Amino acid sequence: MMPTEAPYRVRFEPDGIITAAARGDNLLDVARRAGVGIAASCGGDGVCGTCRVVIEQGEIESPPATQLCSEEIATGVRLACRCRVMSDLVVSVVLEARVPASTGHLRSLVTREEIMAAAGWRFAPPVFKLYLELPPPTLQDNSSDLTRLERALEKHGIENPHCDVGLLKKLAASLRDCGWKITLSFLKEPDGLRLTNVEPGDTRDSLFGLAFDIGTTGIRGELLDLTEGRVLTQGVEYNSQRSYGDDVVSRIAYSSKPDGLDTLQQAVVSTLNKLTGEMSRHAGITKSDIAHIMVAGNTTMVQLLLGLDPKHLRLSPYVPTAAALPVVRAGDIGLDVGKATPLSVIPSVASYVGGDIVSGLVGTGIFQRSETVLYIDIGTNGETVVGNKEWMVSAACSAGPAFEGGGIRHGMLATGGAIESYRLDPSTGQSEVITIGGEKPRGICGAGLISVVAGLLLSGVINQKGKFNIGTSYRIRTGSDGLEYLLTPAQETGISRDIVLTEIDIDNLIRAKAAMYAGYQTLLQSVDLSFDKLDKVIVAGTFGSHLDVEDAVTVGLLPDIDREKFVFVGNSSLLGTRLSSFSTELIEAGKRVARLVTNIELSENADFMENYTASMFLPHTDARLFPNVAQRLETSADEATR
Amino acid sequence: MMPTEAPYRVRFEPDGIITAAARGDNLLDVARRAGVGIAASCGGDGVCGTCRVVIEQGEIESPPATQLCSEEIATGVRLACRCRVMSDLVVSVVLEARVPASTGHLRSLVTREEIMAAAGWRFAPPVFKLYLELPPPTLQDNSSDLTRLERALEKHGIENPHCDVGLLKKLAASLRDCGWKITLSFLKEPDGLRLTNVEPGDTRDSLFGLAFDIGTTGIRGELLDLTEGRVLTQGVEYNSQRSYGDDVVSRIAYSSKPDGLDTLQQAVVSTLNKLTGEMSRHAGITKSDIAHIMVAGNTTMVQLLLGLDPKHLRLSPYVPTAAALPVVRAGDIGLDVGKATPLSVIPSVASYVGGDIVSGLVGTGIFQRSETVLYIDIGTNGETVVGNKEWMVSAACSAGPAFEGGGIRHGMLATGGAIESYRLDPSTGQSEVITIGGEKPRGICGAGLISVVAGLLLSGVINQKGKFNIGTSYRIRTGSDGLEYLLTPAQETGISRDIVLTEIDIDNLIRAKAAMYAGYQTLLQSVDLSFDKLDKVIVAGTFGSHLDVEDAVTVGLLPDIDREKFVFVGNSSLLGTRLSSFSTELIEAGKRVARLVTNIELSENADFMENYTASMFLPHTDARLFPNVAQRLETSADEATR
Repeated sequence: MMPTEAPYRVRFEPDGIITAAARGDNLLDVARRAGVGIAASCGGDGVCGTCRVVIEQGEIESPPATQLCSEEIATGVRLACRCRVMSDLVVSVVLEARVPASTGHLRSLVTREEIMAAAGWRFAPPVFKLYLELPPPTLQDNSSDLTRLERALEKHGIENPHCDVGLLKKLAASLRDCGWKITLSFLKEPDGLRLTNVEPGDTRDSLFGLAFDIGTTGIRGELLDLTEGRVLTQGVEYNSQRSYGDDVVSRIAYSSKPDGLDTLQQAVVSTLNKLTGEMSRHAGITKSDIAHIMVAGNTTMVQLLLGLDPKHLRLSPYVPTAAALPVVRAGDIGLDVGKATPLSVIPSVASYVGGDIVSGLVGTGIFQRSETVLYIDIGTNGETVVGNKEWMVSAACSAGPAFEGGGIRHGMLATGGAIESYRLDPSTGQSEVITIGGEKPRGICGAGLISVVAGLLLSGVINQKGKFNIGTSYRIRTGSDGLEYLLTPAQETGISRDIVLTEIDIDNLIRAKAAMYAGYQTLLQSVDLSFDKLDKVIVAGTFGSHLDVEDAVTVGLLPDIDREKFVFVGNSSLLGTRLSSFSTELIEAGKRVARLVTNIELSENADFMENYTASMFLPHTDARLFPNVAQRLETSADEATR
Repeated sequence: MMPTEAPYRVRFEPDGIITAAARGDNLLDVARRAGVGIAASCGGDGVCGTCRVVIEQGEIESPPATQLCSEEIATGVRLACRCRVMSDLVVSVVLEARVPASTGHLRSLVTREEIMAAAGWRFAPPVFKLYLELPPPTLQDNSSDLTRLERALEKHGIENPHCDVGLLKKLAASLRDCGWKITLSFLKEPDGLRLTNVEPGDTRDSLFGLAFDIGTTGIRGELLDLTEGRVLTQGVEYNSQRSYGDDVVSRIAYSSKPDGLDTLQQAVVSTLNKLTGEMSRHAGITKSDIAHIMVAGNTTMVQLLLGLDPKHLRLSPYVPTAAALPVVRAGDIGLDVGKATPLSVIPSVASYVGGDIVSGLVGTGIFQRSETVLYIDIGTNGETVVGNKEWMVSAACSAGPAFEGGGIRHGMLATGGAIESYRLDPSTGQSEVITIGGEKPRGICGAGLISVVAGLLLSGVINQKGKFNIGTSYRIRTGSDGLEYLLTPAQETGISRDIVLTEIDIDNLIRAKAAMYAGYQTLLQSVDLSFDKLDKVIVAGTFGSHLDVEDAVTVGLLPDIDREKFVFVGNSSLLGTRLSSFSTELIEAGKRVARLVTNIELSENADFMENYTASMFLPHTDARLFPNVAQRLETSADEATR
């Protein structure tokens, strides 16, 4: 390569940071790449006028900026977001535009737990603030407050922003409270800007967002600083809708009762308000400073939140009201923040593949990757997606509540005292029980159930149909539901009763894992892929954090492939809402992903039914699909006979 | 001119109407000019696909239309709104697109009383309906209801219409109620289309609008058929806000009490709901079929309707919250029609020059005229505009309530029994009293007051200062308020009391007319015009319909110029809202007019105060301004002395 084609050298003062740039590069982007902190409230859209720099040496190309006065232009002041690099440069960041070194670090956007996350996006939240000082009205110029505001906005290149009449109610007082100094909040919409708040004085420092993952059981939230790009605090609450049914099917049934839909909507809103209150208090901010809310949830949760009748979600052919939903004013659904605060919803794919999955696909960056990934969310409703940045296919199946402890004699949620791991030494019959929090056992959570069944299978206590091999353990006995296995005797538990596993429990687990496995299998068959062609298997959801991969493969819940390919990502739906709160690029990505994904309905699919039946075995009726497990079972059997 | 340049000949079948067209003319426009009825729900924007014609002979140019199937295109079917005339043509209007001869006559848009009205605008209401038949969902294609709808809309060239989540609540049921046949209502906004209603089945026949003129005292409304362009019925009610004060100043004072603003908003909304109910019942339509509401009112009335604090309207420097207001959802302010029905407000100029004046300027077409017009709205708040299509200047003055009978001993509104005309024969002293409805006199309305004072002046009973010339009439006597004139003795009245006019009454009238006259005078001086340079003087408002021009000039309320120049137009504000309901062009015209008008504040204007003092005389201290009146006064005086 010729030396003349080498990139230009740009030095940013006062930090003296030197970096390289290509001809025509955007100067704000160059600064960001180099880690130079330049404030740009609007995210670099040329609107707010904050990213002021002085071009000390060198050439740039820049269109005239109305935010700069002629004096500033004469002294070399420019807006970094409007400058293109045309030579080597020395650039000073003006004092007001400098971002303190302690903030602005994009690293903090992703917590340690999340080992996969979308990358390469620009920090530009969907909302921004603009501070204006207006000339007060006089008898010679007594135009309306809004006209005066619009004139000032035109200087920032903002024309005809959308504006609710509700906000105008606050305008007169806000303008006069601080001597015609005012801060406006805007939402970036595909067709322009929407005014979402007016506040007296300069409130640019206070720009906060909420990210929520609305689950059927629990709701997780984060309070975000949208100026600095960081998580201020997190919170979790049970979804108050639980009083009206444990799963989406019972909630949908309840919604068709008189006032049922309203009741469910108010229930979820009350939980969101509770979380918002807690997090705001904890972070020491006022709720009215919350400028944006980003929500993901399964399709039923989202329709209930917005008051949309979910009836057709569970009636064939399973049609949601809307995949992509318009932005909602928080006040319209009763959220206790500013009335016009925009609430955005991550779009869904289908009735049983919701925005929580799309949010996960965005958050984990699958939409950016060339490698082929299987994305699994294990739960009552098991959702699976396979694909990469080019294509994605999804499927959902009803696994039943076994993974959350439902339908299991001593089943419970994954909280303190739940057995999460069980080790049985086949040669000695000795067992080792590990509980969450190390407390005395109170029951078995989903991960524990898998661990127990895997242990019993490998030790020959149960056969591959999930039935007890009588005589293989003194712990096998007959209880009220037939044969059962004593896991922990009463005196060692926290509930003063024996904790047992029944054949019915095992049967329920087999049905649940068979549905999940048949789901992935049918999905892969539909795109002519086999499990060993996958580059990665991402297991999403908090369920995965307690799960042992080996156990999950042993029972046939996860495929028997290279264990290195499995990645457990925690709550990737919440991750997706957080990152989308930080970047309009990722909001757009979510829309693209939701459209990109093709959903396959499994509920009336013949292949799925066949795969399901074949999976009703531990690990599977076709041993060739689980070669490693088959080998371990043989080894165990040999050891037992030896 | 060469024969080849002659326009083309276009024949429309089956009516056989022949007309001329220039090369490149839009075929729908050609049809409209020729009076050929072609349905075009969307007003010719190429969206609805209803204006189907068959090109039987000749050449047209037309871009491909997605609303037409390939079979239709092959048989010569085109959308008239997309065709340009390129030769002589024979065109058949397809059966479904024919508008019955009894409808579609733009003449009916303007009633007989309105002798001036805006002209040359295109009938294209701001709302239109679109009927769609969607393919029902299947397991193979179970996309969301909204996605399905959007796909169908794309075929009509409609992409990403704005849509409230509230409307989505009706979507699922509406689609399924009539087998996936649905009618959508859209509002045309400057930046695109807004979905405002969804209804099951084909409801294109039912597209109605409301036009309201919200006055401080009375509210006038019209129910409009927006398909055929005609007035279905009219209504009038007292504004329920009257219980909280007679004029805008007392309403503004009331609004600052606790809950005062809410109370006033609910009061005006209740009156609008009452009128809407009455007019709907009378016309036999259902309120949910009302697709648009167009409102004009003075700035205070509009701010109270929308719940905007009017406090600053009466505090110097008199600043309204907004001149041009965003479209409001009717449900948001409690109007009893569809929740998302759009309510548009005609923009205002200033705190005391409201949307009612702008509506009048649009309705009477002043914004289209080259001639220079003085537009006067006589009332408690006297508004005046001078100008033409190039420029307009406005001013408002507080005339007090005399013109509406306020502050006058026997004053009353212009209803049955009000004296509206009084003739006195100077030679005989005989009087002739004419009342509204021919009833026995019950009091004097504003027009009657002017008539009486003019009569007394010409007969020499009062002098030019408005004081009685004692001895000139046996009817002059001393009453509780000083000198008074007996208009009708008790036995001839409907109230069994003498009806009299006091010197205080005359004084109040002089103040009121002086304020009005000084207002026009100051306005004209500000643009260096004299009254005789005016081409027309338009007197708006129902007040004008009872007023005698000669009397009004005699007392000095109207200028002493050629009487032919005066035009009385009735409620031109209501006319403007009606016509704006029929045409987006006129809505845009209203916005342009509101921006075009420059307002002059009179309240602290030195010229105005000087003019006001000089006008405190009958007709004026400067006799040269009223040459004809001066001559009549001389003649009368001569007759009296002879």
